[in-house]
Amino acid sequence: MSGETIDIAMIGLGTVGGGVVRMLARHGDEYTRRLGRPLRLRRVLVRNANRHRQSVNETFKDAGAQTIISADTITDDVDTFFSDASTSIMIEVAGGVDPAGDYVRRTLESGNHVVTANKSLLAARGIELFDTAARHNASLAFEASCAGGIPIVTSLLFGLAANRVSGLYGILNGTCNYILTQMTQHGTTYADALTQAQQLGFAEADPSLDVTGQDAAQKLAILAALAFGARTHERDVTVLGIDTLDLADIKFGAELGYDVKLLGIAERSETNGRMSLGVQPCFVHRDEPIAQIYGSFNAVSVYGDAVGHVMQMGRGAGQMPTASAVVSDLINIAAGWYPRAFAKVASSIASGGMPDVIHADELTARFYLRFNMRDEPGVMAKVATILGTADISISAALQHEQIVDGFVPVVVVTHNAKQGRLREALSRIEALDTIYASPVSIRIVDLPGG
Amino acid sequence: MSGETIDIAMIGLGTVGGGVVRMLARHGDEYTRRLGRPLRLRRVLVRNANRHRQSVNETFKDAGAQTIISADTITDDVDTFFSDASTSIMIEVAGGVDPAGDYVRRTLESGNHVVTANKSLLAARGIELFDTAARHNASLAFEASCAGGIPIVTSLLFGLAANRVSGLYGILNGTCNYILTQMTQHGTTYADALTQAQQLGFAEADPSLDVTGQDAAQKLAILAALAFGARTHERDVTVLGIDTLDLADIKFGAELGYDVKLLGIAERSETNGRMSLGVQPCFVHRDEPIAQIYGSFNAVSVYGDAVGHVMQMGRGAGQMPTASAVVSDLINIAAGWYPRAFAKVASSIASGGMPDVIHADELTARFYLRFNMRDEPGVMAKVATILGTADISISAALQHEQIVDGFVPVVVVTHNAKQGRLREALSRIEALDTIYASPVSIRIVDLPGG
Repeated sequence: MSGETIDIAMIGLGTVGGGVVRMLARHGDEYTRRLGRPLRLRRVLVRNANRHRQSVNETFKDAGAQTIISADTITDDVDTFFSDASTSIMIEVAGGVDPAGDYVRRTLESGNHVVTANKSLLAARGIELFDTAARHNASLAFEASCAGGIPIVTSLLFGLAANRVSGLYGILNGTCNYILTQMTQHGTTYADALTQAQQLGFAEADPSLDVTGQDAAQKLAILAALAFGARTHERDVTVLGIDTLDLADIKFGAELGYDVKLLGIAERSETNGRMSLGVQPCFVHRDEPIAQIYGSFNAVSVYGDAVGHVMQMGRGAGQMPTASAVVSDLINIAAGWYPRAFAKVASSIASGGMPDVIHADELTARFYLRFNMRDEPGVMAKVATILGTADISISAALQHEQIVDGFVPVVVVTHNAKQGRLREALSRIEALDTIYASPVSIRIVDLPGG
Repeated sequence: MSGETIDIAMIGLGTVGGGVVRMLARHGDEYTRRLGRPLRLRRVLVRNANRHRQSVNETFKDAGAQTIISADTITDDVDTFFSDASTSIMIEVAGGVDPAGDYVRRTLESGNHVVTANKSLLAARGIELFDTAARHNASLAFEASCAGGIPIVTSLLFGLAANRVSGLYGILNGTCNYILTQMTQHGTTYADALTQAQQLGFAEADPSLDVTGQDAAQKLAILAALAFGARTHERDVTVLGIDTLDLADIKFGAELGYDVKLLGIAERSETNGRMSLGVQPCFVHRDEPIAQIYGSFNAVSVYGDAVGHVMQMGRGAGQMPTASAVVSDLINIAAGWYPRAFAKVASSIASGGMPDVIHADELTARFYLRFNMRDEPGVMAKVATILGTADISISAALQHEQIVDGFVPVVVVTHNAKQGRLREALSRIEALDTIYASPVSIRIVDLPGG
């Protein structure tokens, strides 16, 4: 049964790399049984080999992993790392665009396969790396790059392959979802919820990649490429973070039946094929399945023309959920079928052409608006007039008998409106001397039926 | 780009077969672009060719499908159907074990690939057909057999391949979930909810396969084989339907925080590897994601040792969701990679051995119990004594000041108990002359953390 080994190289031995070692230690025999050949981790490239060599026995003592990795496995010499011709699969779990991107390219150019968890790299250089892989009969597997352990990449590429996808809506950042859950369910302020997330290890010391929405935007760019077969790039995604959200709006939204979620949204028009790609805090009706995803979970809803609505939820980050995706990719390459499947995917995306992405101003949606108005006659009339002039009609309004420093918060829900016209109208409203501070606008997402 | 055609045969031209034709008509050009060769439906086997030949133009006039299928495509002659050597992929959407099973076997034996949506066939003869396919270098794709459009087969086989699965919990029958939703949310009786489901087309005129849980049991047998790599069979699954559920218990359950769901449950012990496979109405805490799946949706929660909890929801039946799965399988075979992937799966399951399935009496769980007791002193003491003697301890009890014909319903929630001991205790309690009618017991499912 167990013949020659399948030799693997890995770049990075941080959290996810450690998870990969643990999985190989825990299930190596089972993987060998399934593949017919044992997987062997032959070499690991790190930035500082000495530091890792000293700690490797201590780090992996609990997992019986010393048969998988030892001080000898670890190197920080790039040439040594790449000189080993026996490895046919490289796992990249170092992260970042540089130098990971060049290592990945170099591996693909030598005709070897790459498993990566690196969303930044794929969002920036994914299309180029797909092309490189295809040219060299190599393959690139990246289930771990989007939504961690949720098998959304496999689902989009294979399980839902027959569908024309019209929309994809994802909770793609567990840190943000944790913070929004705390704000929604416990009335915690943004600042306090962020601190809690940091204390629990969900948020980095510098949380900006998460809370600005940039992390979710990278994942959305990748998922949109798969869902639409298009050459999408991170820069195609309009991004707004959760870092400016006010608890007051979450409470008003709840009164109207909405929960707030940071959603990555990729939509494609049935009529003209144009796409919109955006990440922003959105109100979603609380009866929608995706509204009920709380805490650090991720979820992705896909709408296909045949399947209707499919939603997947699970852990979007963390050592073992991410390692689940990386090692599944590894097994699928080692089993011999993934490279063949990837070749079709790569050629399809290569011929998919550049996406026709609409400017955010052209997006049509309903919006929640909040104005702090001076409590005097005629103010609402001025606001309504500006909105009406911009062709934005109002479907609901909410005002409590609550006056703070002579100002009263008025909430308005619009019918469908063009975002650009709304933006212009809001800047004219903001200029009124009877309005205090900037008006707030939050997109309301009406999910398709299905 | 478009060279020789990939020729397809199909058995069955009912609801799902019609969906397949519609998908090929709608997206044929896109599939050709992706595969490099056009798919062509060469021959369709039906029971009565004349009837279908007369209606085919009318049936498919809306979908531009007349380029896909015509009266000439249709035959009811089995020998003619199988005589065409050019077809390499056969789609079986006729259903039933006979004669579909023999047609599938015959196709596999000739080295051709089969896509099937047939859960009855796979639950009864799946392992045998896997072996047949493996022996003849053929493959069997069956995403549509479990949970309709949800890509759960693809996820278990590929996206979650690295995990050791400890449990799988599925809402696998949309008809039952619709009926239970009506009972839970609107207080509809079972009989009325069933009538509604029939009027809406969710339930067959003879709903017994659905409401007895047998349909869900067939799907569970297939999913357990994939999740555990075991040779599971329909007969390994203990089945209890929703047809005996009383609205009173749904209301008491709701008071205790539970929603009722018909769950297919496959669990494997971490310590001894023994499995339990069952379908039954269960109480699930209403905060669990799977409790919030309503109406005719299906959902499957999988717990893997690395990924933790992953849940997928979507349409489990219907023309286009099922066709989504069938045509995705078709594309994956035509793309050339699935046969290779299947070979590994088949050999893994072949070597997986017979499952060690525990008897339902050995199952340990918490239970909801309801007794109708005579309203007189000492009755509760007798019941509690019998439970105590059987080592079943009580964690909660619920009794309202509500007496019907001298009897009062008393609800008891147990701690973990062996189902067999509970069964014995309940029959002793039922024999008490102070108890009216059979006691009710409903399993309470405590889902793993993750």
